[in-house]
Amino acid sequence: MSLIDDLKWRYATKKMNGEKVPQEKIDYILEATRLSPSSSGLQPYKVFVITDKALLEKIKDIAWNQAQVVDCSHLLVFAAWDSYSDERVTEVFNYTMEQRALPHSTMDDYKANILSLYAPLGQEWQAHHTSKQSYIALAMAMAAAAEQKVDATPMEGFLNDKLDELLQLEGTGYKSTLLLPLGYREDQNDWLVNMKKVRTPKEDFITEISLEDLNSTEA
Amino acid sequence: MSLIDDLKWRYATKKMNGEKVPQEKIDYILEATRLSPSSSGLQPYKVFVITDKALLEKIKDIAWNQAQVVDCSHLLVFAAWDSYSDERVTEVFNYTMEQRALPHSTMDDYKANILSLYAPLGQEWQAHHTSKQSYIALAMAMAAAAEQKVDATPMEGFLNDKLDELLQLEGTGYKSTLLLPLGYREDQNDWLVNMKKVRTPKEDFITEISLEDLNSTEA
Repeated sequence: MSLIDDLKWRYATKKMNGEKVPQEKIDYILEATRLSPSSSGLQPYKVFVITDKALLEKIKDIAWNQAQVVDCSHLLVFAAWDSYSDERVTEVFNYTMEQRALPHSTMDDYKANILSLYAPLGQEWQAHHTSKQSYIALAMAMAAAAEQKVDATPMEGFLNDKLDELLQLEGTGYKSTLLLPLGYREDQNDWLVNMKKVRTPKEDFITEISLEDLNSTEA
Repeated sequence: MSLIDDLKWRYATKKMNGEKVPQEKIDYILEATRLSPSSSGLQPYKVFVITDKALLEKIKDIAWNQAQVVDCSHLLVFAAWDSYSDERVTEVFNYTMEQRALPHSTMDDYKANILSLYAPLGQEWQAHHTSKQSYIALAMAMAAAAEQKVDATPMEGFLNDKLDELLQLEGTGYKSTLLLPLGYREDQNDWLVNMKKVRTPKEDFITEISLEDLNSTEA
């Protein structure tokens, strides 16, 4: 199976059957998530893994009652840094340099550059930026799940502030960005499973351009 | 090879050798990109494909002179909707319903819901939201490239407004979000190729929690 086959197989599962996903598959999905690339390699996010039904019920209440939150096997909650700070960036870069047996100072100029670039953009922009990195990780989790024939339903539809409160994220510097229930589809009760997958037609999605094309448009 | 093997193989290639990537591999990568999931299936983005060296030189000038922009085989430019509008959402949903042989009106309530949710969040939030969807597509492009043993360097570092101007995006409702040069690594001149890949340690990246954990923290 190839990634394209996996992407055709997957869909945003609407009804899950409650069956457990084997731990080795969960570990595989989490490892692909952890290996995801991110801006400057900062990985400004982490993942909470929840299987406890009592907690899942509380999350469902603040996630528009989407049943997959409790019918899944494992719920992944992505949470990203609420902003960039010298301290956080330094910690990641120091660790990276230690792992590469290089002096901490190797990254000093680069660090100063990105911090001076991000600071004037403000906290809200920074939170969007860290959140964007978590979308890359979400995508890798979805690709890994599909490869393992595990169903997954990416979700933005939940009350972020309520979830942050429930998970006691206040003061940790993390804010929830995404949910990803993992489990197995219940074919006979899922309205979406047999619907045709629809995507933007290739000719609208992809445009090849050259400088000549642009110049002729201008002329 | 598995996705995890591919993610270990890939890295943000710093030096490319200018060799051409066969069209069938480019088509594969673009097809995986096109199959990416997105919020409400709206795919609020598209991809420009550029091989013209004259245009790539101009892009390099506004992308901090990053050499991969011209040393690549193909440059992908991701561009996302600058906002959500009734017209755009209607167009996508109508097409989806036609493909599924369902009446256009099937999505009316859902459409009204998302539009009323997004409108008060404003244009800037909406642009971040469409951009986030393009990060999922970028991730699938990176995974597909790695599967095909094609190198790729995700880039946020360019002057978005200048690129929009160069590509004549004004008035199209699209704004550039990301660059992805595709090509082949030049091992002997790439400082990063032999560096250890460093990621957040598993124990810091993943946290399992239950309601009991949270209650005991509170107590």
